[in-house]
Amino acid sequence: MDLNEARKSLMSLQRKMAAYEHALSLLSFDGSTGAPRGTADNRAASMSMLSEEIYTLATGEKSLKLLEYLDGRSADLDLPEQRMVHLMLRDIREMQKIPMDEYVSYQELLVKSEAVWHEAKEKSDFALFAPYLKKIFESQKRFANYADPSKKPYDYCLNKYEEGLNTESCDAFFDKVRSGIVPLLKKISEVPQVDDSIRFGHFPLDKQEELALYLMRTIGLDLDHVGLSTTEHPFTTSLGSHFDERITTHYFENDFVCSMYSVVHEGGHALYDTGSDDSLAYTVLDGGVSMSIHESQSRFYENIIGRSREFCRMIFPKLRELFPEEMEGRSADELYRAVNKVEPSLIRTEADEVTYSLHVMVRYELEKRIFAGELEVNDLPAEWNRLYKEYLGIDVPDDKHGVLQDTHWASGLVGYFPSYALGNAYGAQFLSRMRSAVDVDAAVASGDLSAVNAWNRENIWKHGHLYTPAQLLGRVLGGDFDPQYYIDYLTAKVRDVYGV
Amino acid sequence: MDLNEARKSLMSLQRKMAAYEHALSLLSFDGSTGAPRGTADNRAASMSMLSEEIYTLATGEKSLKLLEYLDGRSADLDLPEQRMVHLMLRDIREMQKIPMDEYVSYQELLVKSEAVWHEAKEKSDFALFAPYLKKIFESQKRFANYADPSKKPYDYCLNKYEEGLNTESCDAFFDKVRSGIVPLLKKISEVPQVDDSIRFGHFPLDKQEELALYLMRTIGLDLDHVGLSTTEHPFTTSLGSHFDERITTHYFENDFVCSMYSVVHEGGHALYDTGSDDSLAYTVLDGGVSMSIHESQSRFYENIIGRSREFCRMIFPKLRELFPEEMEGRSADELYRAVNKVEPSLIRTEADEVTYSLHVMVRYELEKRIFAGELEVNDLPAEWNRLYKEYLGIDVPDDKHGVLQDTHWASGLVGYFPSYALGNAYGAQFLSRMRSAVDVDAAVASGDLSAVNAWNRENIWKHGHLYTPAQLLGRVLGGDFDPQYYIDYLTAKVRDVYGV
Repeated sequence: MDLNEARKSLMSLQRKMAAYEHALSLLSFDGSTGAPRGTADNRAASMSMLSEEIYTLATGEKSLKLLEYLDGRSADLDLPEQRMVHLMLRDIREMQKIPMDEYVSYQELLVKSEAVWHEAKEKSDFALFAPYLKKIFESQKRFANYADPSKKPYDYCLNKYEEGLNTESCDAFFDKVRSGIVPLLKKISEVPQVDDSIRFGHFPLDKQEELALYLMRTIGLDLDHVGLSTTEHPFTTSLGSHFDERITTHYFENDFVCSMYSVVHEGGHALYDTGSDDSLAYTVLDGGVSMSIHESQSRFYENIIGRSREFCRMIFPKLRELFPEEMEGRSADELYRAVNKVEPSLIRTEADEVTYSLHVMVRYELEKRIFAGELEVNDLPAEWNRLYKEYLGIDVPDDKHGVLQDTHWASGLVGYFPSYALGNAYGAQFLSRMRSAVDVDAAVASGDLSAVNAWNRENIWKHGHLYTPAQLLGRVLGGDFDPQYYIDYLTAKVRDVYGV
Repeated sequence: MDLNEARKSLMSLQRKMAAYEHALSLLSFDGSTGAPRGTADNRAASMSMLSEEIYTLATGEKSLKLLEYLDGRSADLDLPEQRMVHLMLRDIREMQKIPMDEYVSYQELLVKSEAVWHEAKEKSDFALFAPYLKKIFESQKRFANYADPSKKPYDYCLNKYEEGLNTESCDAFFDKVRSGIVPLLKKISEVPQVDDSIRFGHFPLDKQEELALYLMRTIGLDLDHVGLSTTEHPFTTSLGSHFDERITTHYFENDFVCSMYSVVHEGGHALYDTGSDDSLAYTVLDGGVSMSIHESQSRFYENIIGRSREFCRMIFPKLRELFPEEMEGRSADELYRAVNKVEPSLIRTEADEVTYSLHVMVRYELEKRIFAGELEVNDLPAEWNRLYKEYLGIDVPDDKHGVLQDTHWASGLVGYFPSYALGNAYGAQFLSRMRSAVDVDAAVASGDLSAVNAWNRENIWKHGHLYTPAQLLGRVLGGDFDPQYYIDYLTAKVRDVYGV
């Protein structure tokens, strides 16, 4: 094999894989957005077929030989190529341990599970979903065991979304976060609650869509390359490369704030993905490095930027224009307090910044115990409800508002939830670094986020998957990760909103 | 090779091809519906890659050997298998004549062309689109020449949409239709024009969408398997199999009739596709047999059913409910006359039943002369405008309302247009057959089309692509095709609406 030819083959292999991923992502996107409800089996069959094709392509002897050859000539490759070869070889070796029929039927299971989850959630019927969830957890346990039988299965799951993460570091992180949050909640419970009535009323869907597009432009998304659709549970996906990104939202006619922050959150994901250096398109380095870093960006835009006083003031004239009757006699500062109201609640995606990580901890605890064999799937609803009472002090009325609320497990995303809390904490520390170079408040107040985006692009986005999460964190932070920044950020926010 | 194994391989090969087709159709559907405008290149690259994969799969030695083996054992196959082998071999042999790089770059050209056509139409700038259109026509001429250098290239194009059709039979058909239509138009021009003001006003898009869904249910579509989206130029597509069908429409806020009949038209396509026998799913026999038969169904529902007095009366209460202010003081009979107003106009898709085929004839003439080398692409706009003056007596103000109005050429659909006129004529003759078994008027009046649909399913839909168009026509008509039924149908309609 000739080195230059092999380097070209490396690129064309990734190009072909990107085309398959494009098709699979679009099929999945379609399933969550426009597809008629009776079409899940039809889609599952095609996805299973195409997954089989990409599996064969990616793990085939030809690909393996190419990658092994390039791995042996590593010194002659540039840094991105080295990283591509490393990641692809790692994935192949992991995939090779999974028998092809198991891999394919797992993909098919996921597509069906999502449809069943939708129905189960609608009917608040966990028993409908339980057999699928059992199979998903069992498959993941088997995959973990194939990958490394000496490792805890749950550590395998955590690692998929954050290279290097394990149960011990997660436990330590959550302990620290919890001990920071509990006193804040106690303080808030002792003072009068803020009034959030500004968010409720009648907000026509077409006006909410106009708001969504305005917000997308405001945070700096290029609408020629980022689309907006509606779905049950909002998500973001890249189609083929970072040149085609889709975000989704869910409108509630009686509350415009839900979709508003959903759009800013998913918009943060899209900013990160579309900020990859163009040279990384159609390679495995395109897009974000890990789920935690991804969530650090989405939640940075949603919370740190989006729930700041400056942001609320900056967008308020637009809200007045779109909802003149509902905003009559209201003020930007009322909005600021309303969107920062802290109150233990049922739904994670609607939770405030302070209680949010407690929602994550419930899921983390349950996953950890399921994978340690200490908890059965059938016992999940009861245990979910018990933990919500213990951590958040609230009663869960039904599974729709409890264990069935998130789509993650139905999509096979196990070990993903801690990313949200880690992302929150990373974001707070990023902010403190960013402030030394950018006047963040002034940028937000002016409605021109380009300086903020430029900093994120330069430090985080453009690198795609070039570095490991730990390497990237080290570069950005110039020191160790410390959740204290997050606790300090929350403490300051609570003081500003509640005066305590 | 063992016969039973080969039969199984035949099914799994088709299953795999259906998965690729699913992906490609969805990518194309996405490009015409939700995709952000700057993503065409990204999509084109993935589609080109996947087209290359399906080309390799379909024309590969393994597939060819399998099909040739089965072709040799034809007597041992059942009828559907014989037809599958015949169609697949025919396609492979035709595809094999096209060099792979040409095939792939043609697919890529089409994706880009559609995006450019959108822009060109918006700007009414034919020069923008012309270089792409030239390439498309040149590619088709080359493909025709590869397929059969002894045949007229345009006959190759016609044959793609209607097996057995050629320029001579088309000329004869159009001559007969034209000589039937011209006297009708003359008669209409001598009496007062009908009042169609009922269709104009203010019709909110969400109410029009509700109407669209109502119409879909009314004509008998299963909304669990048929989706509705919006697009520039409405179309229908199957995704993977007839179990997932998508129709599209385009709403105009000031005129509800456009989208209404677009939905019924596309709904007719969807009825035909989803009416395939389930055993044909994931085979090349799934869906309709030819474009003309397809159009016979879409235009049957749009015109013969949808523009009947019974249909207008049946749906009128729904219109009153959705548009109470605009329908105040209006009647179902006013609607009936309005939707049957005959008037030469600019846009084919909005043309009335009588002038419709004249629009088709313009395109047929132009295509025929382009392919005979008698006309250059650059001269198309002028020639288009000249023919509109000659056939329809009207002046074309700009290319947006002229030569750029249809998406067909941008999608590589050359030789397709005659299908619309043939479909009209087939439909009229089918109606006369259907009336001997079904009380069509009573069914439509009652709002329950199941007897009509059952006749179409039994005679046409369920067979998918099992017979050639000629065989199917022979079975349904029990005799020769005769355009006189169509002329008689139009004559009766004109008499009923205009009293002449």
